[in-house]
Amino acid sequence: MAKVFLAKGKGLRVENGHPWVFRHEVERIDGEFEDGDIVEVYNFKNKFVGKGFINSKSQILVRILTRKNEEINMDFFRKRVQDAWEYRKSIGYVNNCRLIFAEADFLPGLIVDKFGDVLVMQTLSKGVDRYKDKLVDILVDVVNPKAIYERNDAKVREIEGLELKKGFLYGKSSTEVEIEENGIKMIVDIENGQKTGYFLDQKENRVAIRNFVNDKTVLDCFCHTGGFTINAAKFGASKVIGVDISDTAIEQAMKNAKLNGVESKCEFVVANVFDYLNELDDKKEKYDVVILDPPAFAKSIHTIENAKRGYKEINLRAMKILKKGGILVTCSCSHYMKPDLFFEVIKDAAKDVKKTLRMIEYRTQAKDHPYLINYEESLYLKCFIFQVL
Amino acid sequence: MAKVFLAKGKGLRVENGHPWVFRHEVERIDGEFEDGDIVEVYNFKNKFVGKGFINSKSQILVRILTRKNEEINMDFFRKRVQDAWEYRKSIGYVNNCRLIFAEADFLPGLIVDKFGDVLVMQTLSKGVDRYKDKLVDILVDVVNPKAIYERNDAKVREIEGLELKKGFLYGKSSTEVEIEENGIKMIVDIENGQKTGYFLDQKENRVAIRNFVNDKTVLDCFCHTGGFTINAAKFGASKVIGVDISDTAIEQAMKNAKLNGVESKCEFVVANVFDYLNELDDKKEKYDVVILDPPAFAKSIHTIENAKRGYKEINLRAMKILKKGGILVTCSCSHYMKPDLFFEVIKDAAKDVKKTLRMIEYRTQAKDHPYLINYEESLYLKCFIFQVL
Repeated sequence: MAKVFLAKGKGLRVENGHPWVFRHEVERIDGEFEDGDIVEVYNFKNKFVGKGFINSKSQILVRILTRKNEEINMDFFRKRVQDAWEYRKSIGYVNNCRLIFAEADFLPGLIVDKFGDVLVMQTLSKGVDRYKDKLVDILVDVVNPKAIYERNDAKVREIEGLELKKGFLYGKSSTEVEIEENGIKMIVDIENGQKTGYFLDQKENRVAIRNFVNDKTVLDCFCHTGGFTINAAKFGASKVIGVDISDTAIEQAMKNAKLNGVESKCEFVVANVFDYLNELDDKKEKYDVVILDPPAFAKSIHTIENAKRGYKEINLRAMKILKKGGILVTCSCSHYMKPDLFFEVIKDAAKDVKKTLRMIEYRTQAKDHPYLINYEESLYLKCFIFQVL
Repeated sequence: MAKVFLAKGKGLRVENGHPWVFRHEVERIDGEFEDGDIVEVYNFKNKFVGKGFINSKSQILVRILTRKNEEINMDFFRKRVQDAWEYRKSIGYVNNCRLIFAEADFLPGLIVDKFGDVLVMQTLSKGVDRYKDKLVDILVDVVNPKAIYERNDAKVREIEGLELKKGFLYGKSSTEVEIEENGIKMIVDIENGQKTGYFLDQKENRVAIRNFVNDKTVLDCFCHTGGFTINAAKFGASKVIGVDISDTAIEQAMKNAKLNGVESKCEFVVANVFDYLNELDDKKEKYDVVILDPPAFAKSIHTIENAKRGYKEINLRAMKILKKGGILVTCSCSHYMKPDLFFEVIKDAAKDVKKTLRMIEYRTQAKDHPYLINYEESLYLKCFIFQVL
């Protein structure tokens, strides 16, 4: 097994618990390895740090699997999967949940979402991809699903030197899986939906709006397949407009509204949200509640300035079309927009439009997406709920 | 009406929405005034900023009431009280709630807590104290309580040059008020309990533990009158130990446990929590869940270093007596411990005891304590829920 030695003064982050070793942090590698192999990591004083997957094609040279000098075998992976499943069960997430949240569940690069009895799996690092078949066996054994579907069409796999593919790895089911979330039915397109088909991370935030939408008019921006929209309608909103640029997402959202018998309250619009908000402002249309759940504007640290402008602009426009005392539910799912930074951007927008904001709640991702505190990348979803005065 | 002029380069914070004008930020005052008067505030360019209460005895010279050049009369105060009540009703807080949260409800120095049909009121600034009788009339009119009790025995009143007093201002009731919170009954001692008698700000955090306590052993540190303890017992904990240094608080907690029929599951201990945690560690006793809800260790910015040590120590000791994978619910109600700082202190404690932490939830104060974002002092309660591995 090859040995990776951290350079002096560069390994402290990893030694303190961060699971990624970057190429530039490494002094030397003793021994031969192939990408995807398991290697040992040592600090510059030759002290054992951990074992992990190596991949010379990635900036992230090693992804730490364990801090113990233990054998990485099937029992190891089975224990990790079991721990992840036990944690979800302990917090009451058994039906639909993120079952395995990669590094935050100590399984680097592995994502498994559970939609009823169908699992959707992504092996996004070279190392974990090698164990794909064995992980399928373990998942079948531990969770007993009807089917496991592979959504390995994520672009990030190319960086790891992996091909893009999707399809069933175990069993069979419809690729349109009906799930129930917060008492609402949703169809999840596990084959062609975004990421694994549904954003489970917003589950608790979708419930959080129940306090504010009864008898209210709600505008759900970037509504995707209608998660917030249908929750709002179910929680008593008098009217909900869902807006998204994707016509396939809107088509699915309409089906979901019908499935829940709330189609008469819901209106769906295919549009660019930025433009649409401006149109509403021009028409002087006002809403009681505006929800902003945009895709990540900052996909890397290099685009952060653009992202800040985007978030500011969209929040500013939303504030303008809110009634006085109305509610703004505003999210960012980009890790690079740290909570404080996102907050400052919104504060700045409020200043520009001369609005006074009261924060009612600050929320993050659902509990089945735990935040490993030594791995700050695992905190990515922010959801602020403001009253706009 | 006297006019207060902000010094050049010193008024921007106030102009941007902060409600406090500090003495050292003022260039000059034109006109006569008495402490408690309403004055006008201008920036150095003679631009109107707002109107507020002045008090030369306080470091906070002026507390802004309004940014409009409007008359401050009974209609003004009535509107403010109505807005505060409407907001609580809109978020479903009608039975027990913080009805008026001072500056965050644009009524500087005024606290009103509602416990069923009894209101407990504090007028903590010289200006608002003058309106006490009139505010009582307005509260009677708007909220129609059975009684209003004055808890003006807070030390902070002395700084404002106000005497300490307590007693009924309107109507009569028992000073032991039974409330229901999260389906649990609690006796609130409005005469001698801490602050107004009960910490309503933790209401939602007390509910949040329901996901983690079923069939578990729970240690509730700084349990006061048993809020978290009894919630834990009701949510299915197999055993809960409540610890507090105050024997009167423990006495009340025991009564509350009995009132809810959970006394057989609850054990109460009068002890210094720091020492008690060490004893448990010496005895190698382990718990599934530990709750830390200490009083504010940092009462001012000058004591922050001591406070950091206190928070670190208590969190470190709690982590040591948790079972592997157990849950730490850790709070700070000191505004001076900013969320990031508090988080770092806990992270530091985890490093010292070689524990890995996963954040499950980050929570703040309940929604009836809104955080006015231009007034950062109004965000004070942090509640992190971690899994400790």
